Amino acid sequence: MKGLKDRVVIAGVGYTKFGELWDKSQEDLLVDAVYEALEDAGVEPKEIEAGWVGIQYPFTGVSGGSAAEFLKMYGIPFTRVENFCASGMDAFRNACLAVASGVHEMVLACGVEKLMDQGSRGLPDMGGARGVMMQFPPAPSMFALAATRCFEVYGWNKETLANVAVKNHEHGSHHPKAHFRKPVTKEQVLKAPIIAWPLGRFDCCAMSDGAAALIITTPERIKNLKHKDDYVKVLANAISVHTLAPWLHPQFDFTGFPSTQQAGKMAYEQAGIKDPVKEIDLVECHDCFTITELLNIQDLGLCKKGEAGDFVAEGNTKYGGLIPVNVSGGLKCFGHPIGATGCRMLVELTKQLQGRADGLQVKDAKIGLAHNLGGAFTVASVTILARQDV
Amino acid sequence: MKGLKDRVVIAGVGYTKFGELWDKSQEDLLVDAVYEALEDAGVEPKEIEAGWVGIQYPFTGVSGGSAAEFLKMYGIPFTRVENFCASGMDAFRNACLAVASGVHEMVLACGVEKLMDQGSRGLPDMGGARGVMMQFPPAPSMFALAATRCFEVYGWNKETLANVAVKNHEHGSHHPKAHFRKPVTKEQVLKAPIIAWPLGRFDCCAMSDGAAALIITTPERIKNLKHKDDYVKVLANAISVHTLAPWLHPQFDFTGFPSTQQAGKMAYEQAGIKDPVKEIDLVECHDCFTITELLNIQDLGLCKKGEAGDFVAEGNTKYGGLIPVNVSGGLKCFGHPIGATGCRMLVELTKQLQGRADGLQVKDAKIGLAHNLGGAFTVASVTILARQDV
Repeated sequence: MKGLKDRVVIAGVGYTKFGELWDKSQEDLLVDAVYEALEDAGVEPKEIEAGWVGIQYPFTGVSGGSAAEFLKMYGIPFTRVENFCASGMDAFRNACLAVASGVHEMVLACGVEKLMDQGSRGLPDMGGARGVMMQFPPAPSMFALAATRCFEVYGWNKETLANVAVKNHEHGSHHPKAHFRKPVTKEQVLKAPIIAWPLGRFDCCAMSDGAAALIITTPERIKNLKHKDDYVKVLANAISVHTLAPWLHPQFDFTGFPSTQQAGKMAYEQAGIKDPVKEIDLVECHDCFTITELLNIQDLGLCKKGEAGDFVAEGNTKYGGLIPVNVSGGLKCFGHPIGATGCRMLVELTKQLQGRADGLQVKDAKIGLAHNLGGAFTVASVTILARQDV
Repeated sequence: MKGLKDRVVIAGVGYTKFGELWDKSQEDLLVDAVYEALEDAGVEPKEIEAGWVGIQYPFTGVSGGSAAEFLKMYGIPFTRVENFCASGMDAFRNACLAVASGVHEMVLACGVEKLMDQGSRGLPDMGGARGVMMQFPPAPSMFALAATRCFEVYGWNKETLANVAVKNHEHGSHHPKAHFRKPVTKEQVLKAPIIAWPLGRFDCCAMSDGAAALIITTPERIKNLKHKDDYVKVLANAISVHTLAPWLHPQFDFTGFPSTQQAGKMAYEQAGIKDPVKEIDLVECHDCFTITELLNIQDLGLCKKGEAGDFVAEGNTKYGGLIPVNVSGGLKCFGHPIGATGCRMLVELTKQLQGRADGLQVKDAKIGLAHNLGGAFTVASVTILARQDV
């Protein structure tokens, strides 16, 4: 089993502003992000040999073939990938596999979701879907169970959670493409209305629209492209599924996510990373809720199990800290247009590693990690990118 | 750009009976097909390193991660692929790319759809979806436009169409897994109620449930597996997207499908096929409507443009003819559980090339081609498989 190391590189990236984009359709968003990425790569649309688009929600008019239509990319394969909240990063994974296979040399991975302005359709009622999906509680209630459990087991409290919100909103306040660009105080977070106890409004990410795109190619082909001297390498990419109904499994205790643990382990192995805190310079971590970030950074091995509360409180995950987490502002500030999120994180990492972050720039960033968690803690994806000289 | 030739092989296949399977859930169907394929391959579930599932319709509880749940395949990546009627074959394509990349050695491609028994949800109303999908007429009306056009341009008539229905129902009457297993007479076809002029009930494929699965591996790994002496090779796999609204394009004249033409051309190039009629022994061709098969066999170069009517009438595409098309009975007899169809065709080809077809066995079949057409003639997929000794 070979990894992706030294076989797949990122040639260009693009993304829209994230937010309540009432005046933009899903098609507009996809076109804006993809054409920005093409321009960034210095690649013509006709050079793209295959495309993958990550999108979670159905009924929004985007199939593989229809994405190609909006982008006017005819005559090539164009596939829609769906994998809960990891849809965007899974599109990226499939695109990487295609390049690594040698079947394609220049491909597109993109993700989009429009959560606003879905008209009478609204968002699909996941809870009402049939089969095992019936067991899905709404996301805030689901993650609230993890929070109350950690309050009990680790002695965390609403302040522990609030530290994540304050940090990410501070980071996001510097990012021109974020949905929310105002810092919040701990007091504001603690006093915010409760969505699902103990998660208040500032513990939850928002409903936002957005799109992001990456052009992926080989180490050979990049030599003749715009970013030949500052391209970004794909070191690892792993996805792991765990059960769709973890609460039915006696081993599951709501203090961690097996899918994140597995995906992290697989990705570290692929990338040859032994000590993530020492070797990785920044992390974009799935923070759909504040509790999610706390548990995921433990699961990714950035700190020991049970210690994420203190680890964050001590400023280790802040910009300028030991290992900055979500310097972009994370899902807390960008919202979570589902298919777009994974690709947005990878765009952020790419620009950070190239020293051209749009928000706060992590100094001399060499290796970055992006992570998504989706479903009922069902699927986790971890991608590790590195600067050209690593 | 490398092809898949000599890099990807099929280790095992499985599929359910197709039909109105009221007593089986989508999850049941997927499990039945996949575990049959695993048994056929002589591979344990835990040996599967990654999975792809093709499924078109949303709201049916199958995401990438949830498919893994039903199959109890945890800890691996599992991706849902959606690409209109080519969803199943696109799942297969992505699985092949993963094996060709060397990142995975043993993977699963499967497809499922349950069109019956969707409860109050019913089937999504594609025509009511937003954006460009608004332009989608129902499938029978869409393909009826092609039929009336060909009546005008080529002098075809309802009998030309009926020949396809009679042929495919004759073929399917021998297949134990088909939904419809009775031959029909030309008279029956001609007298059947009209769905969308000139397409009558026997010109249209049915709403059916079903699932199909393939285990895919490398030429090295197959040497230690059950089918080491009669495995099937993947010679080519191509997908091509054309526009989502061909009727808005002045060049589009409803006498052929550019996506099929492009995908066919790409696949022949990959497989090194110069003369498809001479080199290919059987074709599973997308016959959602009788007119679709007629146009697709032209587009695939099995006969000249405008000559498919005579080509079929003369018996060339019959079992025992020059180049048998849909010896399984095709979509006409299996119905079209969308995500399942592409995989079902590949299961059929695999068994044919191994000399163990469940229905009519094409004598000494060495090379087979499978084809899907989806969307508004938007996306076409072509896969070419070959016997081990080719």
